[in-house]
Amino acid sequence: MTNGQQRDVALVGGGVIGLSCAWRLAAQGFRVRLIDPAPASGASHVAGGMLAPVAEAWPGEEALLELGAASLRRWPDFAAELSAASAGPSGLNEHGTLVVAVDNADREQLDALAEHLDSLGRKVTGRTSRELRGIEPTLGPSVRAGLEVPGDLSVDNRTALAALRRAAEAAGVEFVARSASRVRPGAVELDEDVLHCDVVVVTAGVRAPELHPDLAGLVRPVKGEILRLRTRPTALPPPARTIRGPVHGRQIYLVPRTDGLVIGATQYESGFGTEVTVGGVRDLIGDAERLLPGIGEYELVEANAGLRPATPDNLPLIGWLDTGVLVATGHHRNGFLQAPLTAEAVGELLCERRPPAETEPADPARWKGH
Amino acid sequence: MTNGQQRDVALVGGGVIGLSCAWRLAAQGFRVRLIDPAPASGASHVAGGMLAPVAEAWPGEEALLELGAASLRRWPDFAAELSAASAGPSGLNEHGTLVVAVDNADREQLDALAEHLDSLGRKVTGRTSRELRGIEPTLGPSVRAGLEVPGDLSVDNRTALAALRRAAEAAGVEFVARSASRVRPGAVELDEDVLHCDVVVVTAGVRAPELHPDLAGLVRPVKGEILRLRTRPTALPPPARTIRGPVHGRQIYLVPRTDGLVIGATQYESGFGTEVTVGGVRDLIGDAERLLPGIGEYELVEANAGLRPATPDNLPLIGWLDTGVLVATGHHRNGFLQAPLTAEAVGELLCERRPPAETEPADPARWKGH
Repeated sequence: MTNGQQRDVALVGGGVIGLSCAWRLAAQGFRVRLIDPAPASGASHVAGGMLAPVAEAWPGEEALLELGAASLRRWPDFAAELSAASAGPSGLNEHGTLVVAVDNADREQLDALAEHLDSLGRKVTGRTSRELRGIEPTLGPSVRAGLEVPGDLSVDNRTALAALRRAAEAAGVEFVARSASRVRPGAVELDEDVLHCDVVVVTAGVRAPELHPDLAGLVRPVKGEILRLRTRPTALPPPARTIRGPVHGRQIYLVPRTDGLVIGATQYESGFGTEVTVGGVRDLIGDAERLLPGIGEYELVEANAGLRPATPDNLPLIGWLDTGVLVATGHHRNGFLQAPLTAEAVGELLCERRPPAETEPADPARWKGH
Repeated sequence: MTNGQQRDVALVGGGVIGLSCAWRLAAQGFRVRLIDPAPASGASHVAGGMLAPVAEAWPGEEALLELGAASLRRWPDFAAELSAASAGPSGLNEHGTLVVAVDNADREQLDALAEHLDSLGRKVTGRTSRELRGIEPTLGPSVRAGLEVPGDLSVDNRTALAALRRAAEAAGVEFVARSASRVRPGAVELDEDVLHCDVVVVTAGVRAPELHPDLAGLVRPVKGEILRLRTRPTALPPPARTIRGPVHGRQIYLVPRTDGLVIGATQYESGFGTEVTVGGVRDLIGDAERLLPGIGEYELVEANAGLRPATPDNLPLIGWLDTGVLVATGHHRNGFLQAPLTAEAVGELLCERRPPAETEPADPARWKGH
């Protein structure tokens, strides 16, 4: 299945993308080493785990929608195989998503989203506040209107990461708990020595630009703040579906877990800081309570921030960077969503086959000489 | 200094009271063993560290005020000795306290406090909003009036606990990292064996009633929720003084640290749960921002809850419980404040001398046969 020259693969970066690629490549017969001092930490550990290409569609980003939708189609099979390979749950939640609005400006934003999706031939269903409360009874009285997007799903990111690790180990992936400082064709420079291989795959996130000069300027950190909540015996149960809003213009998402809820928002702050501010937490709680008032009774378990690797056009970077150097990074808020398709594309590229058509706009060659 | 029969002391419980007693007793020449599976954790680790008997004075609780004031007078010397004995900072902050009000009902509460203190011969100074902002420039515009209580201080609880551990170790205290299940004259029952000594001192907090039948019903847990904030380079500095409010009737305190602020409030919940609720955090942040609006820019480092050991009359229990069994617990919100006086009283009792007069109302004999 693979040619003799490319059987030995070293991946640098063990988030959801690195783990997914490692598992799938090992299952295809490659020798795989995954280099990360702390796999399954970083942005993937903090993530909300939304699989929501449709609710996040934006005019001008049709290629991103197609890529996300193609990966989402693969998620049910990916999850089933992951569950079998890891002998445990994958974390996939196949309930859908509601996008809701609390004021007229928010409602206009929803109308614009519905119109845009309609123009692409993707119908979503408008819902009245009454219909919405029929679907999710714990929605608050401030919620005035919404869209039902049954195909946008979610995954418990920590359950999925744990399953990916077990599946990767079972498939024979070797975990190398070291820091990589640089990659070049056939080699990964570690702190004090060099690991040799046939092909390097850069699956690091926000630190990817440090690994290879061609990535400089192509990946920047975008902070996402997250609260993790746990239900209490006296509190209302979490919703079945992901609830997203603009709340007075601020984007927020509430992603259910079996025992609670993950609440998140993107903070357009630059830099590598992951501190969570008092004001950020105040706004997250305030906006979330507008949508689900009952969560005041929930336990606040964790407040955290992750750094998503964003690219200038919001599309990831999936493809050959150099002879013997593949890249799969820049997945921004969509690492979990795009993981199945990315792993498939990397497998195809390593076998010298064409990757799925939806990943072609993600070829890093688009930035050649930027 | 001590008689032959009482030289060997075992303390059960290594919070601020247990550590303070252990250090002082060892320094007086006793053999001291401190039994706690995790010293310096629990409520003492979570505490705000206010040393504020005056700002918390309440009609009918004059004995509590006298006890607190007597212990506060000992704090500067206690801190200096602690610093010397531990070769490090004690954490004492000798800036005072402002009690502020944001609405008319809050102001009436302050007037009542000032009147009550005046009737006891303790003068506090009323301040206008303008004067208050002259003293602490980062106070918010909602603050309408206040009282200056320069004598009410604070201590960085974690710095003090670390110093107490070092001082206790240096004085020869033996730390026994075990769980005690029961105490009786001359013996502490551990999980699988028994530790023998001359005198047992129960310095456990909310679990004290499990150790001795006479404590049943005398100590109950009262939850206190705490947020720990850290300044950021772009944010305003923390105030020098403790800022306390009623904010629309809700009590809140903001206790400065060198690098930030501890914000707390008492939740009148029963039970042994230490989870922090979303609604609790929302209210703490909202009320704190009314007093110090600049803290929205601070980093939220920790949200936590502690269980204070409260007694029916809010006075601690300091005295002989039984032949060979002393008790020093029930310090409620005042463990750090009352630690110096409590340690002194325990030392006097062990030497068969009268403890300081202010601790006499704390004699557990007052509940005999309750």
